[in-house]
Amino acid sequence: MVMKVLGYAAHSAQEPLTPWSFERRNARPDDVVIDILYCGVCHSDIHNARNDWGGAIYPMVPGHEIIGRVASVGARVSRFKVGDAVGVGCMVDSCQHCKPCMRGLEQYCDEGSTYTYNAQDRHDKMQTYGGYSDTIVVADKFVLRVPDSIDLKGAAPLLCAGITTWSPLRRWNIGPSSRVAIVGLGGLGHMGIKLAKALGADVTLFSRSPGKEIDARRLGADRVVLSTDAEQMASASNQFDLIIDTVPIPHDINPYMSTLTLDGTLVMVGYLGPLDPMLNTIPMIMQRKSVAGSLIGGIAETQEMLDFCGEHGIASDVEMIPIQEINNAYERMLRSDVKYRFVIDMASLKA
Amino acid sequence: MVMKVLGYAAHSAQEPLTPWSFERRNARPDDVVIDILYCGVCHSDIHNARNDWGGAIYPMVPGHEIIGRVASVGARVSRFKVGDAVGVGCMVDSCQHCKPCMRGLEQYCDEGSTYTYNAQDRHDKMQTYGGYSDTIVVADKFVLRVPDSIDLKGAAPLLCAGITTWSPLRRWNIGPSSRVAIVGLGGLGHMGIKLAKALGADVTLFSRSPGKEIDARRLGADRVVLSTDAEQMASASNQFDLIIDTVPIPHDINPYMSTLTLDGTLVMVGYLGPLDPMLNTIPMIMQRKSVAGSLIGGIAETQEMLDFCGEHGIASDVEMIPIQEINNAYERMLRSDVKYRFVIDMASLKA
Repeated sequence: MVMKVLGYAAHSAQEPLTPWSFERRNARPDDVVIDILYCGVCHSDIHNARNDWGGAIYPMVPGHEIIGRVASVGARVSRFKVGDAVGVGCMVDSCQHCKPCMRGLEQYCDEGSTYTYNAQDRHDKMQTYGGYSDTIVVADKFVLRVPDSIDLKGAAPLLCAGITTWSPLRRWNIGPSSRVAIVGLGGLGHMGIKLAKALGADVTLFSRSPGKEIDARRLGADRVVLSTDAEQMASASNQFDLIIDTVPIPHDINPYMSTLTLDGTLVMVGYLGPLDPMLNTIPMIMQRKSVAGSLIGGIAETQEMLDFCGEHGIASDVEMIPIQEINNAYERMLRSDVKYRFVIDMASLKA
Repeated sequence: MVMKVLGYAAHSAQEPLTPWSFERRNARPDDVVIDILYCGVCHSDIHNARNDWGGAIYPMVPGHEIIGRVASVGARVSRFKVGDAVGVGCMVDSCQHCKPCMRGLEQYCDEGSTYTYNAQDRHDKMQTYGGYSDTIVVADKFVLRVPDSIDLKGAAPLLCAGITTWSPLRRWNIGPSSRVAIVGLGGLGHMGIKLAKALGADVTLFSRSPGKEIDARRLGADRVVLSTDAEQMASASNQFDLIIDTVPIPHDINPYMSTLTLDGTLVMVGYLGPLDPMLNTIPMIMQRKSVAGSLIGGIAETQEMLDFCGEHGIASDVEMIPIQEINNAYERMLRSDVKYRFVIDMASLKA
């Protein structure tokens, strides 16, 4: 038994997304059926839709920053009831028995977690389709509760941009005595600033372009360092405990390495590929510095982040669009022309 | 007031080391005067003598793996008495008031620690000269106690090769449940194996050349993986908590990265320079792996390591040479033709 769903899909790497009618499974006993209200638009949606990373399966319905309300629940679901505000992020399943899963780190599942779209369900082998659609069916273990106090539109990007910056902040024990820097002021970067500040850290934004000062301070940054200005970079040397680098394209991380303090870590969350120019080990050895990577976050950690955002009144800064604008939104994102995340109002799908 | 000392010095980057008579300060109140018995020969002695890293000051007396007996002490020294077996490593002083110094991490001193040779004393601005000599004068804070149970010849390399591998083992909390790999079986690598094994870890040696199996197992390795064998490398994937990479020349660390487990760290201790080929961030992001650097170790940590070696009967495997053989020893080291460290018998200086 399947249900009919309406969404927007990419049918090839070259074509724009268009309306598409498709099928989802009926609820299994542990499933939650969600009426999607909003879906954030992540850079990786573009990469996937255009097959930049390979492995694209078409038709593809992108979207993994999903906010909605529970429409119905399977017989064994007790944590959610009809009408609850809920979220779904980048994953909808994992093996649930490997060591990372046991530790609540489903994103690092030894068998590979099941992504929200462009993947295959572990049980019925059906294709997974994302949040650019009116309905989604997800196992209750991977459904997040959204606190009442968060604006639901601004909550959508928390499910990817939020957790991707939250997870390294927590992993590297950021708190009131910490000095944190964020590289890049986009969807991830603006969440990194808000979350690091709310955790009590001193927060610096590294930006390549001037004119970010007012906005960065409004978001919570204590200062902005222009990374193209050698003098400003020199004055920032040897001070950060953690740098979260959100830049999704190749760039030189060596200048940032020199701004880490003893035992500091630069965490890559945006760029997948070879470090070009080459990473120099000298500052790493001379001050025991590290470069690390981090991938989204686990389900328990995502719930922790949503609850934290609820307590601290944190949501993303979003620009709402009707789904008919999605292809134009992709083009604007490629020009960094959005403050700071597009969110699709799914009511537009019925227009 | 100064004292006359005999040693071996490099007078330029191109010339062999030759006998040289020079002056050291008389003991200040906090100084220990040490009759040098043995001095290990470190790869960095070659780099420094030949000015490979720049900054060479000639004449240069290399040597920072120094073992000797206390000849006399200054008026304020109470921790050492004449005849004590002592050691001196890579540092003879530091600022003693910065945050790293306060934490016992003098090697990361904000003002720069004073190296045992090719540096300038912080107080009288005299040149520092190393352990290829009959006597050295060192502030008591930087003098290490050598446990009676360690063979003094084999103790010399502990002061650099030993502490350089001990420090990351401790920093990354290696113990009985850990899986550790060592890259390269030289002076550092053979100490890494011994120390990791004595800490209770499961230990693997990565080697580029076959035929290391018997020796590596004798030193304590549980297995050897031939890094040039794709099948062996594949079978080693995703398992190490810590890899200590001791290789001092440019090499590809990407194949080792894939053998780290979730949250694992590869620590560079041997190679100073750009990572060529380029480091790929994908495995780092997909499994939250890190690359770090580490530099020798602090004084308290060095004493801890010496005490640990005393308790566990650990010393380096050394080949003793008279100092007249030092230039030939350098050539053999460049061919990796030593198991596993040359140590100069300083009695030969008087021959």
